[in-house]
Amino acid sequence: MVIVLKSGTKRDEVNGFIDSLKTLNVEVHRSEGASQVVLGLVGDSTRIREEQLRAHHLVEQVIRVQEPFKMANRLFHPDDTRIDVTGIDGTIRSIGGGKLGIIAGPCSVESIEQVTLIARNVKQSGAGFLRGGAFKPRTSPYSFQGLGCEGLDMLLEAKKETGLPIVSELMTIQQIEVFDDVDIIQVGARNMQNFNLLRELGHCRKPILLKRGMASTVTELLMAAEYIMAGGNENVILCERGIRSFDSFTRNILDLSAVPVLKKKSHLPVIVDPSHATGIRWLVPSMAKAAIAAGADGLIIEVHNNPEAALCDGEQSLTPEEFDSLMKVLRKYAAIEEKVFA
Amino acid sequence: MVIVLKSGTKRDEVNGFIDSLKTLNVEVHRSEGASQVVLGLVGDSTRIREEQLRAHHLVEQVIRVQEPFKMANRLFHPDDTRIDVTGIDGTIRSIGGGKLGIIAGPCSVESIEQVTLIARNVKQSGAGFLRGGAFKPRTSPYSFQGLGCEGLDMLLEAKKETGLPIVSELMTIQQIEVFDDVDIIQVGARNMQNFNLLRELGHCRKPILLKRGMASTVTELLMAAEYIMAGGNENVILCERGIRSFDSFTRNILDLSAVPVLKKKSHLPVIVDPSHATGIRWLVPSMAKAAIAAGADGLIIEVHNNPEAALCDGEQSLTPEEFDSLMKVLRKYAAIEEKVFA
Amino acid sequence: MVIVLKSGTKRDEVNGFIDSLKTLNVEVHRSEGASQVVLGLVGDSTRIREEQLRAHHLVEQVIRVQEPFKMANRLFHPDDTRIDVTGIDGTIRSIGGGKLGIIAGPCSVESIEQVTLIARNVKQSGAGFLRGGAFKPRTSPYSFQGLGCEGLDMLLEAKKETGLPIVSELMTIQQIEVFDDVDIIQVGARNMQNFNLLRELGHCRKPILLKRGMASTVTELLMAAEYIMAGGNENVILCERGIRSFDSFTRNILDLSAVPVLKKKSHLPVIVDPSHATGIRWLVPSMAKAAIAAGADGLIIEVHNNPEAALCDGEQSLTPEEFDSLMKVLRKYAAIEEKVFA
Amino acid sequence: MVIVLKSGTKRDEVNGFIDSLKTLNVEVHRSEGASQVVLGLVGDSTRIREEQLRAHHLVEQVIRVQEPFKMANRLFHPDDTRIDVTGIDGTIRSIGGGKLGIIAGPCSVESIEQVTLIARNVKQSGAGFLRGGAFKPRTSPYSFQGLGCEGLDMLLEAKKETGLPIVSELMTIQQIEVFDDVDIIQVGARNMQNFNLLRELGHCRKPILLKRGMASTVTELLMAAEYIMAGGNENVILCERGIRSFDSFTRNILDLSAVPVLKKKSHLPVIVDPSHATGIRWLVPSMAKAAIAAGADGLIIEVHNNPEAALCDGEQSLTPEEFDSLMKVLRKYAAIEEKVFA
Repeated sequence: MVIVLKSGTKRDEVNGFIDSLKTLNVEVHRSEGASQVVLGLVGDSTRIREEQLRAHHLVEQVIRVQEPFKMANRLFHPDDTRIDVTGIDGTIRSIGGGKLGIIAGPCSVESIEQVTLIARNVKQSGAGFLRGGAFKPRTSPYSFQGLGCEGLDMLLEAKKETGLPIVSELMTIQQIEVFDDVDIIQVGARNMQNFNLLRELGHCRKPILLKRGMASTVTELLMAAEYIMAGGNENVILCERGIRSFDSFTRNILDLSAVPVLKKKSHLPVIVDPSHATGIRWLVPSMAKAAIAAGADGLIIEVHNNPEAALCDGEQSLTPEEFDSLMKVLRKYAAIEEKVFA
Repeated sequence: MVIVLKSGTKRDEVNGFIDSLKTLNVEVHRSEGASQVVLGLVGDSTRIREEQLRAHHLVEQVIRVQEPFKMANRLFHPDDTRIDVTGIDGTIRSIGGGKLGIIAGPCSVESIEQVTLIARNVKQSGAGFLRGGAFKPRTSPYSFQGLGCEGLDMLLEAKKETGLPIVSELMTIQQIEVFDDVDIIQVGARNMQNFNLLRELGHCRKPILLKRGMASTVTELLMAAEYIMAGGNENVILCERGIRSFDSFTRNILDLSAVPVLKKKSHLPVIVDPSHATGIRWLVPSMAKAAIAAGADGLIIEVHNNPEAALCDGEQSLTPEEFDSLMKVLRKYAAIEEKVFA
Repeated sequence: MVIVLKSGTKRDEVNGFIDSLKTLNVEVHRSEGASQVVLGLVGDSTRIREEQLRAHHLVEQVIRVQEPFKMANRLFHPDDTRIDVTGIDGTIRSIGGGKLGIIAGPCSVESIEQVTLIARNVKQSGAGFLRGGAFKPRTSPYSFQGLGCEGLDMLLEAKKETGLPIVSELMTIQQIEVFDDVDIIQVGARNMQNFNLLRELGHCRKPILLKRGMASTVTELLMAAEYIMAGGNENVILCERGIRSFDSFTRNILDLSAVPVLKKKSHLPVIVDPSHATGIRWLVPSMAKAAIAAGADGLIIEVHNNPEAALCDGEQSLTPEEFDSLMKVLRKYAAIEEKVFA
Repeated sequence: MVIVLKSGTKRDEVNGFIDSLKTLNVEVHRSEGASQVVLGLVGDSTRIREEQLRAHHLVEQVIRVQEPFKMANRLFHPDDTRIDVTGIDGTIRSIGGGKLGIIAGPCSVESIEQVTLIARNVKQSGAGFLRGGAFKPRTSPYSFQGLGCEGLDMLLEAKKETGLPIVSELMTIQQIEVFDDVDIIQVGARNMQNFNLLRELGHCRKPILLKRGMASTVTELLMAAEYIMAGGNENVILCERGIRSFDSFTRNILDLSAVPVLKKKSHLPVIVDPSHATGIRWLVPSMAKAAIAAGADGLIIEVHNNPEAALCDGEQSLTPEEFDSLMKVLRKYAAIEEKVFA
């Protein structure tokens, strides 16, 4: 940690401040310039509260040298984390560590027929996981809010039929118990900093698919992962899904540079959601390909058998045929990147 | 609702599409140009799902003419809403409708002595409400997370001593029951789109102080208010607290134009949080004054007896003396705007 | 300057790097932690190129402690700069140092009658300066581009009639010569980093009204001012006019916290343009008042005798009557802030 | 064009307004709802000034249905534009229409030896064009500003030696004459809305490489291209180079979805600059690959023989070896996309 003192701080004030820092069990190195004093703190600075330093009347600036996340930090865990999911048929499907996890399915579960049909289709095209929303976070209280537990049951039925592990979004702590048979629990962008929920998910052992908040930095995303990991659950998959920007042509701006950045800073697998990032069907294939080229460990893509009749997000859903074509191209990209579909 | 069809749409496709729209019980007006057809939908369009229209293969663009919020809409409720809070001594303090609600207090409740001392100070300076955090949303799982229920008890003690109604942040549905004696429940920026929480708060009758999310539009803020109001609780106070931007000098960018915009679109009272918006103590007074000048119905300001020792956000807290000076100036601004402190 | 080395850097690499830094005539202080080495550079670091350091293979991070601007820096020029303009009648009107400069007039000069009429009106209401665009930066090549030199002549005519000093936007180096009788030269937001233009303006002695770019940080604005000042022209007026953000309700987001931030970092006067910041007529008064409350040294406001017929930006122009009412309220705000109209 | 009138507008006001619109030679279709009237304008609306409509007291909202750009619009020019550059040896190199243009070279030209060495290297690796800055737009007046005309001469020398066409940035109208032997003129992000410069470049016949401004929408970029094209120069290459965002880890956020969006809206070729977008060397390869996957027609990449000693942007430059490895992988991506290097 580096502390820049205000210009004009007197020598004895500096000394007093250094003494107070030393009581916190850190070594303090002083660099004295013509107009400013800079202090370097060395040692275990975890007991030092950065914001308290910032509030000090002598302090101009506090610069953190170490990343604030630990368990998610690649520094202390150099190897890639791979998330393994064992299917009902015993097959293991993985995300990370050279395995590409392709998660596909409808935005919302609408009926058993719909979700089973789509599940069969995406499985045939090579998807490894089935997604489907039962509880939906909607901007308007007057929009369709998902089928709830009933939707979850339909999803489980599709899982039974196809063997595909399922991914679904959970919105409250109370719902955790009904997600018992869901293979990967999704935390949506709007809940990325719902810290109570994250902490609770730290106590289960299921993989958590954690989506980046719409205006969250990569550090904040890693701190959210840290909340889950600090509770004991290290099975976190990070997901870039677009951030807010000034250009409203696409729903969000897909930040693909976040993929290599996250992978450099952390050992956790990183996947990309081109459907929500763009909100536009014809942009999904190019962004899916770009995500693999950027180093993503997987994709989560919305597929609907009849997008025009979808109860939710039809404008960004691929048809099963479009998804199938895309998968064929993605295989070529995966080959270049020396990765295999889970 | 206005629908722009793709250029090249054939006449019989247009006719078929119009017929399908008419089954939804709306009138359809057609404007046919050289290269494009534009349809105007008239009537009760609430049963039409905008996103389904967007997903239609003939549709280029869907433009909503009416605001998506109803209960929060000034159009259907022209008069200002005023939130009244009756104190334990029977005094009524108000926010909105010409009354300025000044809410002041520490970021976190730290001890009975601390919160009571600050409460007495801010009351003397003219604050109408006491704020204090018991449950704290923190970016890091390793930061101080608030004193919880114990903190809430200290806050209630300070309320008993000073008679000031209290404002505190609630983070989960489970906490609602322990907030029984809290006068105004705060929903933080990170929870602005925690829809389950909002819906639950719609069932209580307490005033809800709803903070704008860091990257939420004013329409999204009003839709969040709509979630609460749709449940039956019309006592919502909106709060602008700074939005994310590219310049990192201040923690956020205080969007003061949101104040008159919100007040034009909605009848709900709008207050401003200059402390969180800037994150810097010396910016709070100028932004507090500007907020009143911009038409705000109140302010929420962090005050701490010893900012340098604060367990949270000391760098943005005013001392009681600074707060007192500020209040003296704010009275002059309030007089020009013909508003009175609650 | 503080340099953080990559973790894992070997001792002799550190020594070699320090030796190379010492050849640049700075003192180097070393803080050695468990996993990382931090270097503090003391002395005249102006000869050190920060980006070259960043490119070094041992370097993780370079942190600049001193601001990169000098002539604009309040540290080396503690007193407020006041810009004085002597009118054709000998009257001195000022901006900064307790004087509020109110600049008002049409977006575009359209005719002698129009600009003279508006000039007379705004003068009567108390404006100190007349604005009017002759050369207009327009997003579309097909939009009205201003009357050019002819428009400038009309503006000069209005100056002769009313005695008001005039402010007009210059777009190219070639235009400098025709701006001889313009009192304050405006550099628009899109030209804030037109460095050749800025450098050229450093060679004249006229006050320059420098508008903040739509996505420029306050530091970049001050660096743009530095370009002008480094050339010898210290008469720079900074102008906040709204920045790009994700919410498109207003044209831009007026960043009022930039006013006190700029005034703390720099001695230059800071004015606000509520017309371009919001793009909406009914938002101008509240933002004008808020700007004064935030500490601005002046305002630049669009006024048009017939906004509905304006050739440019009518939707954000006040009528002379609206401007007059606003000025009456602004006087009260100015009185609280102990400032007088120029 | 669709006009939404304010709710409460009276029938005769509506009629009067429609009559005034009809004098502009457009057909007006009226859709009358319960609370609002919507007008659809059909015909040649180019003579209608949108902003004048917005300023009208009866108007709530004006919605443009047609894109404001014409010559850049794919609607009126369905085939891809391909930019051909004939080298001094008679070889034609192209960008667009299935040809990938790879432009590589140093940020700044530093010496004949440097630029010739790099030119030879990048040519050998397969680059089709040599880039090099002679006039540099720098945030600080105290930074290295480029070698100017001397630098241009060195670049021309490297062109003579290697046969590679050259690309260099022009900053002012005055410089146009010295760019006679430059093959592609670059307009930097900060000059994207320097309309006088754009208009002047419309009068030459050289290809213009137009970089997107840091906070410009894709529509604004296309309008800037329109300025050049309206002058008669249709040889415009668009370049995505990262936009401003709230996360400061990377210098900018590379907006790769802009590539397919631009290519859908316009027939002009679109290239990507991964070096400036990220500002970080180790991110360049992944973003270069992702750009090709997203459909880009080329790349502009900074290469320096000794990044640590570069006078500019060394931290984002690849070494010739790194560039060579990257080119090998890019060939595989190009093959999938069925494109060939120019």
